[in-house]
Amino acid sequence: MMQAQGRLIGLGVGPGDPELITVKALRLLRESPVVAYFVAKGKKGNAFGIIEAHLVEAQNLLPLVYPVTTEALPAPLSYEQVISDFYDEAAVAVAEHLDAGRDVAVICEGDPFFYGSYMYLHDRLASRYEAEVVPGVCSMLGGASVLGAPLVYRNQSLSVLSGVLPHEELKRRLADADAAVIMKLGRNFPKVRQVLAELGLAERALYVERATMANQKIVPMDQVEPMSSPYFSLIIVPGERWQG
Amino acid sequence: MMQAQGRLIGLGVGPGDPELITVKALRLLRESPVVAYFVAKGKKGNAFGIIEAHLVEAQNLLPLVYPVTTEALPAPLSYEQVISDFYDEAAVAVAEHLDAGRDVAVICEGDPFFYGSYMYLHDRLASRYEAEVVPGVCSMLGGASVLGAPLVYRNQSLSVLSGVLPHEELKRRLADADAAVIMKLGRNFPKVRQVLAELGLAERALYVERATMANQKIVPMDQVEPMSSPYFSLIIVPGERWQG
Repeated sequence: MMQAQGRLIGLGVGPGDPELITVKALRLLRESPVVAYFVAKGKKGNAFGIIEAHLVEAQNLLPLVYPVTTEALPAPLSYEQVISDFYDEAAVAVAEHLDAGRDVAVICEGDPFFYGSYMYLHDRLASRYEAEVVPGVCSMLGGASVLGAPLVYRNQSLSVLSGVLPHEELKRRLADADAAVIMKLGRNFPKVRQVLAELGLAERALYVERATMANQKIVPMDQVEPMSSPYFSLIIVPGERWQG
Repeated sequence: MMQAQGRLIGLGVGPGDPELITVKALRLLRESPVVAYFVAKGKKGNAFGIIEAHLVEAQNLLPLVYPVTTEALPAPLSYEQVISDFYDEAAVAVAEHLDAGRDVAVICEGDPFFYGSYMYLHDRLASRYEAEVVPGVCSMLGGASVLGAPLVYRNQSLSVLSGVLPHEELKRRLADADAAVIMKLGRNFPKVRQVLAELGLAERALYVERATMANQKIVPMDQVEPMSSPYFSLIIVPGERWQG
């Protein structure tokens, strides 16, 4: 008899507060014999930190450790190639459990399909294995909630932008948005603040670091220390309030 | 002694599947002496349907019943004025409980600050009462999960657009987006499908009705009956897969 395959589960665990996991994600997390997670070398991993208290005994932990922590690599190494090889290997490691009939829950900070690393496993494995994705509360909605900032009204358009975008492109896209969220700040923060100032949006913009996490920090835009802005910070430009 | 005020709680209950409520929202829902919800006349309400099974006895239900179901009203009535007056009255009804020291959980389908009617209560009350917002899984992420569609990769921009937008504006914004979600389809569906076809995006676009709900329906774009598309349907144009 052929061994039944395990299921691949992309499990959104929410933006940081362990209580912001869904009831479904919590159930599937506890039922999964294998819990996989992406993590930087020497770190615990944000997603793992969120669900640690929810784990039960006898679960296999499968850390998928990034080989590099920066996109700037010495030639002839290319970030794209190194990271692509890494995702290939991670997919093999996950597939071994699936082939052995064990479900694998890949925990993802926020939502699995919203800028999540899980997507690279999904793209490699979902055609061969049964895959289920449990959506989660994404970081931008966690951010809006703690900032007390209604994000987008009625027929307004919302643009979710990466702080990595070049100055002019970021400016053009922000100018065209009714409401915006800018993610991936980190060392891009000074550029983003400059663009907001040029557009006259600096006073409408709100900034938060590690929203809903225990070490969350809300800082007025003009008081952010540019070099201290972590990757998990974001800026929200809420839509103009509708008077209705 | 002055009566302590109750707390206003904007409670995201997720996209439809009752299990996609967060642990925190479920706890606050059950702890709240008053549960308020927006609902169309003669309907049960989507948010209420999601949490009905989670309610405990002895909770006060406060339905906030929309006075109109269409934006097209006979002169001299204006939708904006009628709906604005309605939100004023709804805020008064909620404030009565808050003044009496009772917490009021306003349940919201999806997330409270992502196109939610709760925002109109928040705008009227949050300056006078303690307000807490519990973020939820929004409909577009529920949609992406059931479609098995990774939504947005790396530094791609995501545009969330309303199907109500005029043809040319929708086309311009869609052409500029790396990934897009189009909400509020309903009778706007034929126009949206036409725009997608003009941009050569029809084959990349995915359609779902009532994602994660018991009566969810996934239909290929070219087979959607234009006049049957409900308001709670959405179209996702996923970002181009990153090969990394």
